[in-house]
Order: sequence, then C-alpha cells, then structure tokens
Amino acid sequence: MKRAVVLLSGGLDSATVLAIAQAEDYDCFALSFDYGQRHSTELTCAKRVAEASQVSRHVIAPIDLRMFGGSALTDDIAVPRNRDLTLEDAGIPVTYVPARNTIFLSFALAWAEVLGAEDIFIGVNAVDYSGYPDCRPEYVAAYQQMANLAVKAAVEGTSRIRINTPLIAASKADIIRIGLAHGVDYTLTSSCYDPSPEAEACGECDSCQIRLAAFQELGRTDPIPYRTRAIA
Amino acid sequence: MKRAVVLLSGGLDSATVLAIAQAEDYDCFALSFDYGQRHSTELTCAKRVAEASQVSRHVIAPIDLRMFGGSALTDDIAVPRNRDLTLEDAGIPVTYVPARNTIFLSFALAWAEVLGAEDIFIGVNAVDYSGYPDCRPEYVAAYQQMANLAVKAAVEGTSRIRINTPLIAASKADIIRIGLAHGVDYTLTSSCYDPSPEAEACGECDSCQIRLAAFQELGRTDPIPYRTRAIA
Repeated sequence: MKRAVVLLSGGLDSATVLAIAQAEDYDCFALSFDYGQRHSTELTCAKRVAEASQVSRHVIAPIDLRMFGGSALTDDIAVPRNRDLTLEDAGIPVTYVPARNTIFLSFALAWAEVLGAEDIFIGVNAVDYSGYPDCRPEYVAAYQQMANLAVKAAVEGTSRIRINTPLIAASKADIIRIGLAHGVDYTLTSSCYDPSPEAEACGECDSCQIRLAAFQELGRTDPIPYRTRAIA
Repeated sequence: MKRAVVLLSGGLDSATVLAIAQAEDYDCFALSFDYGQRHSTELTCAKRVAEASQVSRHVIAPIDLRMFGGSALTDDIAVPRNRDLTLEDAGIPVTYVPARNTIFLSFALAWAEVLGAEDIFIGVNAVDYSGYPDCRPEYVAAYQQMANLAVKAAVEGTSRIRINTPLIAASKADIIRIGLAHGVDYTLTSSCYDPSPEAEACGECDSCQIRLAAFQELGRTDPIPYRTRAIA
C-alpha cells in the first residue's frame, strides 16, 4: 500500500481530502500543528477526524508561529466579522498567516521522506480563499518542484514527490458534496476562526460565512453548533 | 536599513554568513532552531555569536524533528567517525536530516514576511557537503522561486525574496579566510556533530574532520577545544 502524508487541520476541507486519499487506497499518515492558534477546537476536531478515519498514525507537531505574529490567527489582531465576501477587492485577509502552508508542507515533506512516501495531500483551495497566496496552483507547482530537489532521492534523480491538491478548484459546496459522497462526517469538523470556549462556531467570520452559505446552497443544514447562522 | 533574516546554527558557516550580511549593511535578525538535536552546544554558540554580532533580534524557534527521526542528528543512529571523506561514492551521510533546510528556510520566510525583509541568508555549502540535497544551488534556486509565489506580495507580483547563499561555492578554508577578514571570532562557534557534555569537539565526525583540515590548510590552529585533532 502506498503511503501518503495528509495535512489535517480539523476543518472541512482537510477532512474531505483525507477521505479522498483513503478512497484512492493510500495508507494515510495525518499531520496537524499546534502552532499557537487562538483556540484548540481545531486540534480536537483533527483528533476526532483522524480517529474516525483510522489513519495509520496522527502526529500533532508543536510549532510556535506566535513568535513572529503578523496574523489575526496568531497575534492580537481582531478576526473580521460579517464581511461582504462577494467584493472582488477584499484583498488578503488579516487571517492570512505568513508562510503557514510553506511551513506545514515542509514538515510534511520531512515526514514523507522518513516514511518513504511520495504523496502529500493538502486541502488548499483557490476559490473561496483566492486571497491567500499559498493556496494558488502556481504556488503548489513551485513547491512541488522545490520538494523534488530537496530530498535525498533528488541526488539520484529518482525523486517523485507529488503535492496533491484535490480541492484546489472546487467551490465549498462542491467540497461538501464530494465529502458526503465519501462518507465524511462533518459533525467532527470545525471551520470557525474564533469559536467559543464551548467550541460553538461564531457564524460571523469569513470561514463560518463561507461554510454556512455552502451548506445552504446544497439545501442542507450544517450539523455543527453555531452562535448565529445568519449569512451577511 | 534593509532587513535580513539570517539562519544561525552556531557553526562556522553561519557565523561567517552573518558577518558577510552585516558587512553588506543589512539589519540582521538571527534565527536558530532548538530542533531536538543531540546536544545544546550549537545553541549556546548561536547565542554567543548573535550577542557578539549585536543582531537586532535573535529568535530560537523550538521545533521537534525527533518526531520523525531518520537522521543521526535526531534519532538513535550513531554519528560516523573518521570516514575517508575523499571518497567520491561516500553517498548521503546519515547525518542528513530530512527536509531540514526546507523547514528552516520556511520559518525564515515567515519571519521575513512579518519583518518586511526581502533577504534571507543561509550558510549552505555545496563543496564540503555535496552529499546533502538541500545544499545544492538548484535546490536553493527552486526554493527562491517557490518563496516568491508564497508571500502576500506575490499576489500583486511585487515579491522580491532573495535566498542569499554567499558560501555555496566556497571551500571550508575559503570560508574561514573570508570570516577572518570580516573579524569573525571562531572561538564562539561549534561544528561538531557529537561534542562532549563540556562542549569539547570530538575531532572525529565528518564535520570536525573537515573543519580541522581547513584550518590546517590555512596554516592555523582551530581555536576551539578538541578531544583529538588527528585528521584521518
């Protein structure tokens, strides 16, 4: 069975990606990060998803991105609420964490090399988060090229690292549709940037708004608890 | 003053790189890693070099590469001693740490983005460590290309990240010559893969052997303490 490292955040996208990788018969090794994010809800969710999916191993790597700050998710910057996400000029949101995907993929690459895995799966998406530079196809392609020069096998020219991004061109509604077809239990996931201590989603941050709208588009009710479900 | 993030290991190469960056009038931010390496001597040295060089800030990022293992520097694998380094087919040594430079550069990139720095300095060298995939010019070029697609400024097409590798083509003797010309105090540095608890270099690992031979080539005595100074 070929092995894969799957980045697992506890959110909707990465839970879907894990299900896709397993449906493609990969032996999955899930990797999450305790990176000084504001809340631990997403790590709790990552653990639940990893257990429910019976991955071969789940590692939570402690890293400290608060050292550098620069994001609403790692610094004392407020998470924006009820923004109009249909505006083209919304720019890169303050929830962008500098070089986060680059750091996450680099740990995944290290683990993949030790495991002898050639595949890394990441749930990046260029549709709903088009503002994030490190979710774009050109970034992923450049990362893959670099990765294939970074590992031992590169010296013999036998390196075949693939950065798999099965959701990169999907809308959030598409992602949920794919996930449901693969039997993903979205009650185990969390997408909110700023959940309550009781793990209730705020319903107002960009991430909640996108998720709520997608379930609405599918004529379904998001199964997780929210403080408010009004879409701006 | 333009800012730069300088990767500082406490070894001879990175101390030299820091001196070069400062001579080029960069305001330097030094970044070291507590990555589960076998010994803390190199971090002690990194602190001493950072202090002596009066960098603007020195951050030691805790990360755990022992989680993945796969190297003599992070796992229970013996450090090789008294190898014949003139053999062409020596291959990639067990001291190679999977994706280490990729991980280090990714943290440097995160900090650079927060600082508004466009320059990252790293003391990689393709001469003495030609066996390491992530010390080769083609790897560094690919990393730079990826980095310029990873950061916020990439979305506007204004990203100008440079991965500076001033020592990539230098021999160890050249590096020491350059460093001495810049006033580097090599007594503050450590290169040994397996120093004693008293921070005495073993004299027998690849790194000690290369360092001792380089000082010998320059007709100088390496100022740090060794258990043995015999070159194989």
